[in-house]
Amino acid sequence: MNAEIIAVGSELLLGQIANTNAQFLSKSLAELGVNVYHHTVVGDNPKRLKNVLHIAEKRSNLLIFTGGLGPTKDDLTKEIIAEHLGETLTLHEAAFASIQAYFAKTKREMTPNNKKQALVITGSEVLPNQYGMAPGMYLQKEGCVYILLPGPPREMEPMFVHHAMPLIEAQLGAKEKIESRILRFFDIGESKLETVLEDLIDKQTNPTLAPLAGDGDVTIRITAKSRQQKDAQALIDQMEEQIFQRVGNYFYGYGQTTLMDELVKLLEAKRYTIACAESLTGGMFQSELASVAGVSARFLGGVVCYSNAAKITQLNIKEETINAYGAVSEQCALEMAANVKMQLNADIGISFTGVAGPDSLEGHSPGTIWIGIAVKERPPKAFLLHLAGSRNGNRKRTVRYGCYFLMTELNQASPH
Amino acid sequence: MNAEIIAVGSELLLGQIANTNAQFLSKSLAELGVNVYHHTVVGDNPKRLKNVLHIAEKRSNLLIFTGGLGPTKDDLTKEIIAEHLGETLTLHEAAFASIQAYFAKTKREMTPNNKKQALVITGSEVLPNQYGMAPGMYLQKEGCVYILLPGPPREMEPMFVHHAMPLIEAQLGAKEKIESRILRFFDIGESKLETVLEDLIDKQTNPTLAPLAGDGDVTIRITAKSRQQKDAQALIDQMEEQIFQRVGNYFYGYGQTTLMDELVKLLEAKRYTIACAESLTGGMFQSELASVAGVSARFLGGVVCYSNAAKITQLNIKEETINAYGAVSEQCALEMAANVKMQLNADIGISFTGVAGPDSLEGHSPGTIWIGIAVKERPPKAFLLHLAGSRNGNRKRTVRYGCYFLMTELNQASPH
Repeated sequence: MNAEIIAVGSELLLGQIANTNAQFLSKSLAELGVNVYHHTVVGDNPKRLKNVLHIAEKRSNLLIFTGGLGPTKDDLTKEIIAEHLGETLTLHEAAFASIQAYFAKTKREMTPNNKKQALVITGSEVLPNQYGMAPGMYLQKEGCVYILLPGPPREMEPMFVHHAMPLIEAQLGAKEKIESRILRFFDIGESKLETVLEDLIDKQTNPTLAPLAGDGDVTIRITAKSRQQKDAQALIDQMEEQIFQRVGNYFYGYGQTTLMDELVKLLEAKRYTIACAESLTGGMFQSELASVAGVSARFLGGVVCYSNAAKITQLNIKEETINAYGAVSEQCALEMAANVKMQLNADIGISFTGVAGPDSLEGHSPGTIWIGIAVKERPPKAFLLHLAGSRNGNRKRTVRYGCYFLMTELNQASPH
Repeated sequence: MNAEIIAVGSELLLGQIANTNAQFLSKSLAELGVNVYHHTVVGDNPKRLKNVLHIAEKRSNLLIFTGGLGPTKDDLTKEIIAEHLGETLTLHEAAFASIQAYFAKTKREMTPNNKKQALVITGSEVLPNQYGMAPGMYLQKEGCVYILLPGPPREMEPMFVHHAMPLIEAQLGAKEKIESRILRFFDIGESKLETVLEDLIDKQTNPTLAPLAGDGDVTIRITAKSRQQKDAQALIDQMEEQIFQRVGNYFYGYGQTTLMDELVKLLEAKRYTIACAESLTGGMFQSELASVAGVSARFLGGVVCYSNAAKITQLNIKEETINAYGAVSEQCALEMAANVKMQLNADIGISFTGVAGPDSLEGHSPGTIWIGIAVKERPPKAFLLHLAGSRNGNRKRTVRYGCYFLMTELNQASPH
């Protein structure tokens, strides 16, 4: 089965909303092992919708339409599809009754155009709408399956999951189970990762490997198919082991996690408290730390010593340090980390000082950044970064490197 | 000109990301008065990409491609388009130099596949990439314009706005000028705004009014068409005046500004310095303040006194205050603002203390928040909020209310 997702609606073409329905449906179809080869968006225009329908039928045999089932004149998806297939529209009594009940319940007057929503393509299987008025439809003709779904995600998603997916699964017959696992890496570029894993990616059939980059973070999705779920899992386990042998040092977590989430888990596990001193990041590390619910037992607080004066008055950084080495220096980062740890009586002190940009500072180019880390009684360490992003890109990546270096220091992320 | 936006990338068809690029481009093209009739998504597959290209050329004459310009073997957008148009690829020296410079700067090794990114379609106009490595391209052949853009939004968006839009505008030639202006409001709901402006919205033809809501912020876009730019501007001016008569109190800025940008402008104008004390917001106010380039002359620093102990040791909040009133109290907010102002010898102190959620604190429900503001010699003031969002939603809105209240205090935003 090759699927195409066709969204009908001018609001998408005007950029008023993003086509998140296509994302949801693609993800759900991938889980069923159905290939999605095309997404199409077209406006509420009969001629263009008909053309899109012709094109889609030539290249796909599962056509999923979203939108255009509403009460207004603009809504014409089912009318066009019915005409195209030589079918008529019939009033669906149950759907009509539920529309009438809805208006009775909300004590509103039903306008005549609402009846239009209860019309369905003759011969289609009707998909009930639990969160709205327009029913969905499922029909099959000449080897092609047509599914019509409403546009609003809160109506479309439950309808698809509860009523359309079982019909597609039945259509697929005794099919294979698809399992997938996402591995997350940091501090390795997408191109480097791909070079290192090139042979595995090239010979991929089952499982398949899909790398994806995003802002210093690289993920790999391993997807395996098998008749038995446990066999698919075993295929993934084997592939994961091969990947870890090569780039395990850069791995930090599975699935939808973040570096900060993993750091907080580690702080929890060790029952360590943390205090922070931020210059260029201006509070971003602490803000992200505070965004994790329940962190207050671990995060004591810190300072944002944005100016040199603040470094001296708030954090007791020695004036000699700043005069001799500058604020953007290993010495300053070390002192900041040690002092904030001491001031707040924390187990860990972490510090950030450097040049976010766009201008240079103390003769250092934008992207020159020092991160200081002091853990318990160990001597504090400092790490140097050379980033090449925009001002705020550099600040964000600095925060992520802070998480990463600290995890490494805490001996849970493997060092590299 | 009829545009089609073609996104190339399997990650879209797998549902890993939504096609937000198509939304951004559609919105931008609408501003230029260009009709977008189709969005298409296709995978990294030569045959299917070629077919999509054939179909698109028949129905559209502005084809905008996003994605598939990266270093890996999967990336094949420019290769396929070049082949289709009978063109070759040439190494673009400037793009190659900037890729080499990027690797030199970040002290990483350049893998051979990165050179691929500097290849461009012969005869195309190269669109520089300020935030990444792959350059974009603009070319015209047989009445059809082809624009190739990178996939990551932070690279694609500035490239499109700064380099592609002017070329499209030039292509459109002398036509009706479309002018638009965005007005930004805070602390008024979209539905309230719409009710107040209903008659203006209903009778809209030229200019048109489009309200759009987002996170406590409401914007109205006024769009006017005319042969002369100044006539379109005059139409917008008249409409703006009518709007301001009704809801001018809630207005805070034009266009792509934010409350924080406007606050920094005001601090600049008054040459005031600011220091901050944050509890529930955990550094978010300071981080956003620090995100504004050039703020360092105004922003001295502050504390993140996340724990009560930190409030006492770092900020000298009286233990009696916390014992008698709690940390979530007007008294604590006032003391925090006054103390941080004094500690950093700033003109302004601002403080945030409250309950982000999900749990209650000191008997206060989530969303109970105090903001303290101390300006120069004036007695400090405190403002109470009752928000109803999620933990991080509440933190974000608190930061925005902080900007808004402080602007009001500085007597530049109109009070209401």
